[in-house]
Amino acid sequence: MALIVQKFGGSSVADAERIFRVARIITKTYDAGNNVCVVLSAQGDTTDDLIAKAAEINPDASRREMDMLLACGEQMSVALMAMAIEKLGYPVVSLCAWQIGMATDSVHSAARIRTVDCERLREELDKKRIVLVAGFQGVNRHGDVTTLGRGGSDTTAVALAIALKASVCQIFTDVDGVYTADPRVVPDARKLPEITYDEMLELATLGAQVLHNRSVELAKSYGVPLEVRSSFTGNPGTMVKEVVNDVEKTYITGVAQDKKIARLAIFGLADVPGVAFRVFSLLANSRINVDMIIQSTGREGRKDIVFTVPEKDASFCRQLLEQNRTALDFERLEINTDVAKVSIVGAGMQENAGVAARMFEALFQEQINIHMISTSEIKVSVFIDRADADRAVRVIHEQFFR
Amino acid sequence: MALIVQKFGGSSVADAERIFRVARIITKTYDAGNNVCVVLSAQGDTTDDLIAKAAEINPDASRREMDMLLACGEQMSVALMAMAIEKLGYPVVSLCAWQIGMATDSVHSAARIRTVDCERLREELDKKRIVLVAGFQGVNRHGDVTTLGRGGSDTTAVALAIALKASVCQIFTDVDGVYTADPRVVPDARKLPEITYDEMLELATLGAQVLHNRSVELAKSYGVPLEVRSSFTGNPGTMVKEVVNDVEKTYITGVAQDKKIARLAIFGLADVPGVAFRVFSLLANSRINVDMIIQSTGREGRKDIVFTVPEKDASFCRQLLEQNRTALDFERLEINTDVAKVSIVGAGMQENAGVAARMFEALFQEQINIHMISTSEIKVSVFIDRADADRAVRVIHEQFFR
Repeated sequence: MALIVQKFGGSSVADAERIFRVARIITKTYDAGNNVCVVLSAQGDTTDDLIAKAAEINPDASRREMDMLLACGEQMSVALMAMAIEKLGYPVVSLCAWQIGMATDSVHSAARIRTVDCERLREELDKKRIVLVAGFQGVNRHGDVTTLGRGGSDTTAVALAIALKASVCQIFTDVDGVYTADPRVVPDARKLPEITYDEMLELATLGAQVLHNRSVELAKSYGVPLEVRSSFTGNPGTMVKEVVNDVEKTYITGVAQDKKIARLAIFGLADVPGVAFRVFSLLANSRINVDMIIQSTGREGRKDIVFTVPEKDASFCRQLLEQNRTALDFERLEINTDVAKVSIVGAGMQENAGVAARMFEALFQEQINIHMISTSEIKVSVFIDRADADRAVRVIHEQFFR
Repeated sequence: MALIVQKFGGSSVADAERIFRVARIITKTYDAGNNVCVVLSAQGDTTDDLIAKAAEINPDASRREMDMLLACGEQMSVALMAMAIEKLGYPVVSLCAWQIGMATDSVHSAARIRTVDCERLREELDKKRIVLVAGFQGVNRHGDVTTLGRGGSDTTAVALAIALKASVCQIFTDVDGVYTADPRVVPDARKLPEITYDEMLELATLGAQVLHNRSVELAKSYGVPLEVRSSFTGNPGTMVKEVVNDVEKTYITGVAQDKKIARLAIFGLADVPGVAFRVFSLLANSRINVDMIIQSTGREGRKDIVFTVPEKDASFCRQLLEQNRTALDFERLEINTDVAKVSIVGAGMQENAGVAARMFEALFQEQINIHMISTSEIKVSVFIDRADADRAVRVIHEQFFR
């Protein structure tokens, strides 16, 4: 008998109708003879509503109390889902983090899971109950409620799959798998039956937004197979695992784009050692996530540094750099939010020369100007004008998948 | 340094403005040099909203899952209040039942508290933190969430006051104390500075609705002084304790009324032993709370039984009795919801003859007809037409307090 961990996000449990749709997916899995452990997020806008309530009272509330408040969202979800599954006539039990020993560190609002004590979980599964676990939350060693931050419920699901040695961890979303490109941009994008953890990590980072990186990294570390599936269709999804059968020998797995970025250019920095260190340690201390960095020599013993950050951090970055203008000693700062990053990802490109060249060729033929280029072992990213992004994804996809 | 337990109900924390009003009451108590432990109910309509959500999904949801759902209401309250107190600049921590070892039995939705493990509470109080505890909830020995049922948060507060050996347990409500009669009915009703537990118990049972009986009984068992205060005015409230200084030597403490009752009359029962037993064990098995009972001999070897129940249970009672008509062997059933109970309560009446007579005299002079009479050591209750109830309270109050 297999043990399957399933995770459903907030939009999948947003109202009574959707809760019953999910309940039927769960009971169908149970009827097929599996042990089922399910992780749920908070319903629809619950978390946002709770954050708004807190902001009205104290915008600078401690993270400890925010976690205490937000954890209620997932607790309500699992209780309501349990009621729906009871209604369908199945044995079920809902559990919070503190009831299953989901132990985390004490970094409130961004806690990391340390251990899961499976005793209660095993006990309930042995009783042939469907077990519902509140995602996103944990308990630290002081017995305080913590939350896991972004991608929290996915991470809960993978952690449970590891602890329970599940045969698969199914992540249900509103898309039915990982595609070679965003189907809204490229109508003939194909669904991938399989993809490696590393490819999934690159795609997640590059804005494919199917799975959160953190859960993929965790799954990779412990070799837990992930499956991305739709909670709306019954179709098989995409398996994420260590090695895939690349029968079709395509060199790349997918084309991704990210429009939520900004490019910052610092012109006329002193050309002395330690300049890059000072700039980027300043940003790192404020937890700004810098992506691509290019440094070039400018005129008269000066140099320029260009880099990209999430668009939401752009204006804070400008402030930070302006405040430290004297210490950093630069001439001019330029921020450009009219850019996008388009990338190809594929483990196959390691053994195949010329993949990048084929990508650039496609862009050249379409007269799309490349501002910056960044590569890793399994991806090639280009920065282009945001207005060109969708077109770029289409021509690159056509180049590799036609 | 005194330790004070304070409890605020759902209407006292219904919105941000009220939360801050309560936060200032709490911090003022803290500033006066006290250790403060505060119990909160769920905000305003939160519990009703959660019940409605559950009903939409499964009206017959298990009580175990209902408790899991409803406990969120109090958890959200304490987290939000903690944020308000943080905003005012005070050290504070919110805690749920499972974090303070609020151990109950396993009767979901009507659990009884067994023990409170004070370790965490003491630890937080020793750190000079204001401690906020989610009321109404507990944990059973399996580690499942329970709720305490009606009057739950009052009971949580009294249990904490007992466990922490608090000097007083202050129950904040929307009235500023216990009055000699409902001030909305009797404009010149007086606030009582003190009242005994027994008097408070009779008044609570009789519909004064200031404190729930269960918390008063618990406070009486352990001799914890209770104080009923208003969360809207800063006025001193009413102390509830074992012995009061009855300086004014009034025989009665207050006049109470209860309009939410129904009178059932069963006519023509067989006049043989065991009839009353069969009728009332039938009702007791369905957890119907029968109040006053009168039995009289009717005609031809038959007898009649008249009794009162909460109005909400009346139609269920009728069904139950009709279903068992053959077994119980009666002729006719009559239900009357147009009745009210008016009572006088006072420990002083034990040593003073003629108190009941003075009450009846007041009613006679006002030409109010008495249907039934019931007495205990410290109270006299009469059943009258509901339309006469307010007038009866006024004339009785005038008789004793003019």
